[in-house]
Amino acid sequence: MYLGAIEAGGTKFVCAIGDRDGNVHERVTFPTTTPEETFGQVIEFFNHYDVKAIGIGTFGPVDLNRKSRTYGYITSTPKPYWSNVDFVGAITKHFDVPIGFDTDVNAAALGEQLWGAAKGKNSCIYMTVGTGIGVGAIVEGRLVHGLLHPEMGHILVRRHPNDEFAGSCPFHGDCLEGMASGPAIEKRWGKKGAELSDRADVWELEAFYLGQAIAQYILILSPEQVIVGGGVAHQPSLLPLVRRYVLDCLNGYVQHAAILQHIDDYIVLPGLGDNAGICGALALAKQALEK
Amino acid sequence: MYLGAIEAGGTKFVCAIGDRDGNVHERVTFPTTTPEETFGQVIEFFNHYDVKAIGIGTFGPVDLNRKSRTYGYITSTPKPYWSNVDFVGAITKHFDVPIGFDTDVNAAALGEQLWGAAKGKNSCIYMTVGTGIGVGAIVEGRLVHGLLHPEMGHILVRRHPNDEFAGSCPFHGDCLEGMASGPAIEKRWGKKGAELSDRADVWELEAFYLGQAIAQYILILSPEQVIVGGGVAHQPSLLPLVRRYVLDCLNGYVQHAAILQHIDDYIVLPGLGDNAGICGALALAKQALEK
Ligand SMILES: Nc1ncnc2c1ncn2[C@@H]1O[C@H](COP(=O)(O)OP(=O)(O)O)[C@@H](O)[C@H]1O
Ligand SMILES: Nc1ncnc2c1ncn2[C@@H]1O[C@H](COP(=O)(O)OP(=O)(O)O)[C@@H](O)[C@H]1O
Ligand SMILES: [Zn+2]
Ligand SMILES: [Zn+2]
Repeated sequence: MYLGAIEAGGTKFVCAIGDRDGNVHERVTFPTTTPEETFGQVIEFFNHYDVKAIGIGTFGPVDLNRKSRTYGYITSTPKPYWSNVDFVGAITKHFDVPIGFDTDVNAAALGEQLWGAAKGKNSCIYMTVGTGIGVGAIVEGRLVHGLLHPEMGHILVRRHPNDEFAGSCPFHGDCLEGMASGPAIEKRWGKKGAELSDRADVWELEAFYLGQAIAQYILILSPEQVIVGGGVAHQPSLLPLVRRYVLDCLNGYVQHAAILQHIDDYIVLPGLGDNAGICGALALAKQALEK
Repeated sequence: MYLGAIEAGGTKFVCAIGDRDGNVHERVTFPTTTPEETFGQVIEFFNHYDVKAIGIGTFGPVDLNRKSRTYGYITSTPKPYWSNVDFVGAITKHFDVPIGFDTDVNAAALGEQLWGAAKGKNSCIYMTVGTGIGVGAIVEGRLVHGLLHPEMGHILVRRHPNDEFAGSCPFHGDCLEGMASGPAIEKRWGKKGAELSDRADVWELEAFYLGQAIAQYILILSPEQVIVGGGVAHQPSLLPLVRRYVLDCLNGYVQHAAILQHIDDYIVLPGLGDNAGICGALALAKQALEK
């Protein structure tokens, strides 16, 4: 039985055909242009398969409230053409199957819980550090929505005393995303992250911010597993430093062996690697089918 | 039908008899001394009633994991005599009824959701600002436990540039609790909060920290209702200032009418007033009975 998956990003869309065990059989990628053109390509792709459900993990903000008039919409994004766009409506018009719809990071968190690094856990967070910073969360077995959906990439962080970078977030300046996203790294140091691998000071500072943020997520959400993905997490030296800053920041406060003794297994890379996003969308399809 | 409720604090215990509608019929209060003596008084009180379930909202940290060997314990508290104490065991030895057991703030959040300011909502946070700062949370209809339980009172805050107070938290110095709890106010200004009502600067600074923290909780948990209780929340000028700092801090980022247009109804005092804690314990009893 086929399931459909859509990983909708601000720069590209990935569509895939997979199954209920998280296997991806076919995939295509195309750039995100206008809703008309991009949805057209999505529909053209799925027309070739008999999918029983479709999962959508998308950039946002989105309306996840099933009682809302604009459920399934991308709402107030600054991305040209994509504000107030009925994503779920555009898909259901062509495919009469259950649709799972959530943020890209919530999708990835669900994928990791079903088939990846948080398998068997009742709670986890999935953090992506890339063009932006986003975090998806599962709490008590459920994806967190609430009033809107979490926007954890924009929490405040304490500045490092030697860091004079103003921050790149248009809303908050030096929030976490403003200080630690891929573009923030590039602006502060004048080079892309991938070209800074040999600069220990870059990753020390990056880990200072990410570790601080993860410590806050732990204090607030108490997740059983922390997963860090996205382009910036490809830096091999980063995660060990992040773990150290998390411990520094908590300073023994959360007394649990998972943190105090096994932090290497507690804060990890995605079990699904760079497939976390598309497998997450597949997981949303599976969930929609089973509901 | 009677339900029993225990609100266990570091300085005093409140025990009550109530019903499934959140009414309290009888209550007693006694100081927290040793587990032997205090549990003795608890048992003596409940011996007079035929309770069908007992709810316990307690100071912590506690073990909430039903699969753990130390489920129902108060674990690593610095409070003398109370470390590694089997709270649930001490009660079930005498009363063979379902027991609900959670943190004091989670209990209060549940009470507020059933009968108070978050009635009908699927998510909320309950923050107490008193001797310590604690926050309980309901997410997607469920109390948040996770790895341990949230410890949101200890998140980092950005210091106010004019604030030179070192902070009073023994673990973190100037975390939220270290900067904004009742004792922190007293240490910084040399007087108890209740005697500082006419000092606008005191409440401006207090709101600066609380507003900042609540903005982080909103970004991370996306609650549908925010409730602020505890002794310090009795200051009448505080909540309006807190709301303003929350808006400042979010800076338009979370685009929802509840925040942008109706913040006076979004961040509120407890609907149950100073009964939030004991009614919360009653709510835990009701929940235990219905499970
Ligand atoms: N190996 C690397 N080390 C550090 N930064 C990287 C690396 N690879 C990619 N990045 C940065 O990650 C960002 C892209 O993130 P990515 O997760 O790949 O995409 P997106 O967030 O757009 O989905 C860019 O800012 C890029 O500079
Ligand atoms: N009206 C008030 N204004 C400011 N602070 C107050 C007020 N009333 C009590 N407090 C402070 O609140 C703290 C006690 O908090 P409370 O919630 O009553 O108890 P606890 O946290 O111990 O359960 C004390 O530090 C006290 O100084
Ligand atoms: Zn921001
Ligand atoms: Zn602290």
